[in-house]
Amino acid sequence: MKLIEAEIEKRLAASEGWKREDGKWIAKKYRFLTFIGAIQFVNQVAEASERLNHHPFISIDYKMVTLRMTTWHDGGLTELDFTAAAAFDGVYVRE
Amino acid sequence: MKLIEAEIEKRLAASEGWKREDGKWIAKKYRFLTFIGAIQFVNQVAEASERLNHHPFISIDYKMVTLRMTTWHDGGLTELDFTAAAAFDGVYVRE
Repeated sequence: MKLIEAEIEKRLAASEGWKREDGKWIAKKYRFLTFIGAIQFVNQVAEASERLNHHPFISIDYKMVTLRMTTWHDGGLTELDFTAAAAFDGVYVRE
Repeated sequence: MKLIEAEIEKRLAASEGWKREDGKWIAKKYRFLTFIGAIQFVNQVAEASERLNHHPFISIDYKMVTLRMTTWHDGGLTELDFTAAAAFDGVYVRE
């Protein structure tokens, strides 16, 4: 079920580094000291997203990883996007 | 050293699925049956790119992986881009 605007704003305010993009997306950039560190993070994100059955778009620009999410099924942002965002933040180890 | 236009065209013609993008990039999309298959490919691309010390931009859109390359140091496409392209094709296992 799509979240209403006020709920999205509240969840964004409570999160760190996640930004709204084009209305129905949230995105975050994670920076690493090495390319291998970035790849290890992507593997952990992959594992978490399989567990949640919710897969972000992932871009790897050398030492920077960008995650982007929406809930296709509901045509916008849902609780699941913020649950996944918290899970991905949880596996991020600042190097 | 940047390749001249005729050399780029020759190498593109000899490759499979690699396309020119914005003049100084080459890009290719690889499709997989599963998200996990896509992630395994990304790990092998990461290993090959560390070995070559040439890192593509990598995008993972669920079961599709896109690689994009250029040689920053030379401001365009070089032999190394096509060497890396062949290495990435070499680790791709059609599922």
